[in-house]
Amino acid sequence: MFDHPDFDDHEGVHVFSDPATGLRAIIAVHNTNRGPAAGGTRFWSYEDPKDAVTDALRLSKAMSFKNAMAGLDLGGGKAVILRPEGDFDREALFRAYGRAVEAVGGRYITAEDVGVSPTDMRVIKTQTNHVAGLDEGPAASGDPSPVTAEGVFRGIKVAVRHAMGLESLKGLRVAVQGLGHVGYGLCQHLHQAGAHLIVTDINPDVLKQAQNDFGAVVVKPDQIHAVTADIFAPCALGGAVSNSTLPAIRASIIAGAANNQLATSDMAEACRQRGVLYAPDYVINAGGIINVAAEVSGNYDKVWVQEKLEGLENTLKTIFERAAEQGVATTVIADAMARERLGVSS
Amino acid sequence: MFDHPDFDDHEGVHVFSDPATGLRAIIAVHNTNRGPAAGGTRFWSYEDPKDAVTDALRLSKAMSFKNAMAGLDLGGGKAVILRPEGDFDREALFRAYGRAVEAVGGRYITAEDVGVSPTDMRVIKTQTNHVAGLDEGPAASGDPSPVTAEGVFRGIKVAVRHAMGLESLKGLRVAVQGLGHVGYGLCQHLHQAGAHLIVTDINPDVLKQAQNDFGAVVVKPDQIHAVTADIFAPCALGGAVSNSTLPAIRASIIAGAANNQLATSDMAEACRQRGVLYAPDYVINAGGIINVAAEVSGNYDKVWVQEKLEGLENTLKTIFERAAEQGVATTVIADAMARERLGVSS
Repeated sequence: MFDHPDFDDHEGVHVFSDPATGLRAIIAVHNTNRGPAAGGTRFWSYEDPKDAVTDALRLSKAMSFKNAMAGLDLGGGKAVILRPEGDFDREALFRAYGRAVEAVGGRYITAEDVGVSPTDMRVIKTQTNHVAGLDEGPAASGDPSPVTAEGVFRGIKVAVRHAMGLESLKGLRVAVQGLGHVGYGLCQHLHQAGAHLIVTDINPDVLKQAQNDFGAVVVKPDQIHAVTADIFAPCALGGAVSNSTLPAIRASIIAGAANNQLATSDMAEACRQRGVLYAPDYVINAGGIINVAAEVSGNYDKVWVQEKLEGLENTLKTIFERAAEQGVATTVIADAMARERLGVSS
Repeated sequence: MFDHPDFDDHEGVHVFSDPATGLRAIIAVHNTNRGPAAGGTRFWSYEDPKDAVTDALRLSKAMSFKNAMAGLDLGGGKAVILRPEGDFDREALFRAYGRAVEAVGGRYITAEDVGVSPTDMRVIKTQTNHVAGLDEGPAASGDPSPVTAEGVFRGIKVAVRHAMGLESLKGLRVAVQGLGHVGYGLCQHLHQAGAHLIVTDINPDVLKQAQNDFGAVVVKPDQIHAVTADIFAPCALGGAVSNSTLPAIRASIIAGAANNQLATSDMAEACRQRGVLYAPDYVINAGGIINVAAEVSGNYDKVWVQEKLEGLENTLKTIFERAAEQGVATTVIADAMARERLGVSS
């Protein structure tokens, strides 16, 4: 574990198993200098359990950076549950997972992530109070996806203003990769703002809906990055920008909701050298965790959420300006700002 | 982690790091069906951090089996701290480790193990109450080594009675590998009982003392297993019985204080086939944890400790008898008894 390339001085990595329910989970707590570690729980089939550890470590560190950059009093953590092979009792599994969250004693607060449903969250909540992103209860913030989508939309406008000098998205072409809750919500904003949409997904129903609702042009998943567009918005799983995709990307802005958009960290500098403005993923996609933070505070305040989203815009603007001034990749500026806010040296 | 060959359905494996103090530690909680997991903390230089994980997992499972076989209401756990390279502030390191123990929330209770001193334990105690084996305070049980030594001595007598039909150790030759607190204490018992001692250690001072106190014959560490003796008592680190040592072992009984005496699990059957009676390590060396359990109960009771040591003798006797009846290795019987007491199937 300590020699894992993504270990990065995690404060705590907690591995749980419960043969009775089939639970195998990893709760990674990267850093709690700013507050309890908050981040989603992912429920996923991993071919190799090692990949689950890698996923947890990378995502957890990204949450530290994200929460710090969003100006939240939260540390960074993330959890993954390995989906059992064959049949399993989902409620019993998530109950066992809830006990695992409880065992971490409030140093980790979980929210939803890929594969975890509101029902699962309610089951977790029966075992621990260290849960956010619920759709019921006094401070419930509900599904954070709309706020993530709004944050990404606002971030795209900041990027367009910086890179193209435009105040409006009207007539711009945006290629959206992935129409999940966030991707679809982003399309709604973009469509209302007058942008043309080119979209892809693996779900034919949601593609049909996007055609109907937005007049979106549908392309195959392996073509979305290469279409003629002003903005490429990765909103699916990670690794959209890689050595194999970047040469074909024609957009001058990459700004989307996905975590870990860069397959390798050198892609940030590669973007810069191609004249592509990259909005660091963990900065632009912080809307969801801002919403969760509002719930964690115990008193959900819409005005506070809007203020934090404005903060997100300002932070992105600062990153773009400093990166341009210093002639470095946007992630260099963002990472340095995040480390400073986290109080860590590397 | 889940695919680690020694993972064995650990309930929790908790990895901690604290760059400020250099702390890198693993707290492994194998099973808490019988009660909170109790086991020592080891402080050790590992060439490869992977070995630390393996050590924690193996030792933790062994503690589950040991505590169950000793009839204690304790689960099994173990912790290892990786000794930092170069200079470090020992007190700050153990303070950080104490916070890690506290973070596991009472599901793990630590005692001393190799490399951890009473002073270190007092430092840990400033951060958490989940500590046993202290030398101060109302229920303090102090150094558990004398009780471990007494348990091993009693176990050797059970083995001698079973294998040789003798009621006394008088005139028997015992080869003792390792003269730490437990090994030396065992020698005191054996000497008083009239046994002849052949000893080894890497510390010349303690060897000289054993020569003076017991008239012990000193041999080199790589020869101790091969000397002419009735009993071979491994009391150093693990792996004393291996494919390379077993063919040279002349004793008809292997019974000592070390954990993980068998380098590989097939050594138990190999002992049986050679006509060597092996006392399963986690059964015979439970005296220390019995003593710790007496402290954990909050009311240290010497009579209770003596009763549990008698239980240890009876358990060993049962194992030896059943193994002989069924023609299987002693560990087959011991493991099955332990699993039954733990309420696990494998």
